[in-house]
Amino acid sequence: MTTLRRVFAVSLGDPAGIGPEIIARAWTQRVQADLPPFCVIGGAGVLAAAATACGLDVPVRAVASLAEAADIFETHLPVFGTMDEPFTAGHPSQHGAKLALASLEGATQLALGGEVPAMITAPVSKTQLADIGFEHAGQTEYLAHSCAVPPGDAVMMLAGPQLRAIPLTVHCALADVAGMITTDRIVHRATIADAALRRDFGIKHPHIAIAGLNPHAGENGAFGKEEIDHIAPAIAALQSAGICASGPHPADALFAPHARPGYDAALCMYHDQALIPVKALDFDKGVNVTLGLPIIRTSPDHGTAFDIAGQGVANAGAMIAAIQMAGACAARRNG
Amino acid sequence: MTTLRRVFAVSLGDPAGIGPEIIARAWTQRVQADLPPFCVIGGAGVLAAAATACGLDVPVRAVASLAEAADIFETHLPVFGTMDEPFTAGHPSQHGAKLALASLEGATQLALGGEVPAMITAPVSKTQLADIGFEHAGQTEYLAHSCAVPPGDAVMMLAGPQLRAIPLTVHCALADVAGMITTDRIVHRATIADAALRRDFGIKHPHIAIAGLNPHAGENGAFGKEEIDHIAPAIAALQSAGICASGPHPADALFAPHARPGYDAALCMYHDQALIPVKALDFDKGVNVTLGLPIIRTSPDHGTAFDIAGQGVANAGAMIAAIQMAGACAARRNG
Repeated sequence: MTTLRRVFAVSLGDPAGIGPEIIARAWTQRVQADLPPFCVIGGAGVLAAAATACGLDVPVRAVASLAEAADIFETHLPVFGTMDEPFTAGHPSQHGAKLALASLEGATQLALGGEVPAMITAPVSKTQLADIGFEHAGQTEYLAHSCAVPPGDAVMMLAGPQLRAIPLTVHCALADVAGMITTDRIVHRATIADAALRRDFGIKHPHIAIAGLNPHAGENGAFGKEEIDHIAPAIAALQSAGICASGPHPADALFAPHARPGYDAALCMYHDQALIPVKALDFDKGVNVTLGLPIIRTSPDHGTAFDIAGQGVANAGAMIAAIQMAGACAARRNG
Repeated sequence: MTTLRRVFAVSLGDPAGIGPEIIARAWTQRVQADLPPFCVIGGAGVLAAAATACGLDVPVRAVASLAEAADIFETHLPVFGTMDEPFTAGHPSQHGAKLALASLEGATQLALGGEVPAMITAPVSKTQLADIGFEHAGQTEYLAHSCAVPPGDAVMMLAGPQLRAIPLTVHCALADVAGMITTDRIVHRATIADAALRRDFGIKHPHIAIAGLNPHAGENGAFGKEEIDHIAPAIAALQSAGICASGPHPADALFAPHARPGYDAALCMYHDQALIPVKALDFDKGVNVTLGLPIIRTSPDHGTAFDIAGQGVANAGAMIAAIQMAGACAARRNG
């Protein structure tokens, strides 16, 4: 029996991390969490071993096609692709990094070819990937490159039940952030976010709240002028272009409970300004979604957690939320 | 009939802001919230008018002594000191700023003289105070000066039910923060915090978690070296001195639900790193407490909110929490 339901691709992540076990645990929650059918790309042996180590009853089965994956998803965790590697939970290796990369590449090709409606990526180790010659800063940068999208057009959004936040700058020293705040960069990123919130999140008129950089948003220039010189002009430009942008908002007030319902996403000036509130509020359900790509890609908003891998204590909430969000975005994008 | 219970001093704050109404509302909650008796310093007319405007049934009564305030607290909101000024809610004025300052000065003198066990300050407008010649950056700096304590020894801590956070730097441009991170400054501030957590918060062996400055705490120097050059050496020095300090912790993970129970207070590198999580988690119960003073001083962790003053919509939760915390700290300090 075949089914018309399309299967989502999940990349394995680093086999020594918690990726395999949270994928297996997510599969056990497929009914309660109303997950769309998904298929892991490679790592059948890794998944089976990780599930066993964590006390999960997950029958892993290799499949020859995505159609077969859909057919068996109710009763088995399907794995497409024969690549596999030995691994030890908590001890990353070059073998493991190669498997993680092969899985990511496989999932990406399926998404780019339209064979899956979306891809969900489990966490990788950037250090391990760099060791085997991976030339991208992370999975997001790899995906932008694979999609032939300029790096600045692939926009990371952290999304939890209580908050969506988009960092303008990410992995740079805090001392360098102020110099990277430009009107153009803010306008560009907010414009991509606006389009994605409409297309993939079903928000007709997204309200994007833009944070200030300095405490109290600079208090009229008393401590820092980036709000006056760059952020306010960007907001004016966005408003002229018909985008509902507001701010610059003092960042400490922006994430307070009474403020959060007032906007659909917050555009933040630096990594921790976005990540602190998302992780404080929605740690176990935080999803990293990449806006601005031709494909849909989500990911749990946490790392490999090598220190707790294989112990059965990793929380699969963010992986489950990532699969759910991929399903919802795909349903909206594809009608 | 007199009572042995000592009365706490509450300063009025700017009469055009929400200070008077949240004080009046706190008094209405005195039984449910188990508040210690308190007395407002000046502003009897302001308090009565604010209560009426907000639909609160609060009988305000001028008293001639703190003993009288204690006697009538059950049935009346006592006001000590005859200063008063006309005011209009939402419209700050120089008259109002003068009254706010006189109330602050009066409360401070009572606390310094040991006539009250602690003082609670309602919010003032720094702009308005500067206009009438007030030479301090804020109430905390004024109190340090009044107590003859060096400015760097008066340490602001934001405390809510879920988190205590201490910013190392406060009102400066974000671009200037990195240059202000020094080993000495961290050691000094953490040492004051350690002593205050023991004395006023009853924590025998306080664990102080120290945040990194950069994303991922710099990831071993990959983006920013302040963790290596200044923060880690400070932590080593604190540990050598017998203080339980840990870190540098990636700031985004430090405030996640599973991380928060692991420490008693977080020492943060800049204003928003501390204020974002406190306000996201504990907005309506956030208390600003000044550590390192010979007197006990708490304050609701919000501003004058001129935009909503006089409408009866201001939440008194933080003021109530500030009065409760002053009571608890005083009980511990005074045995």
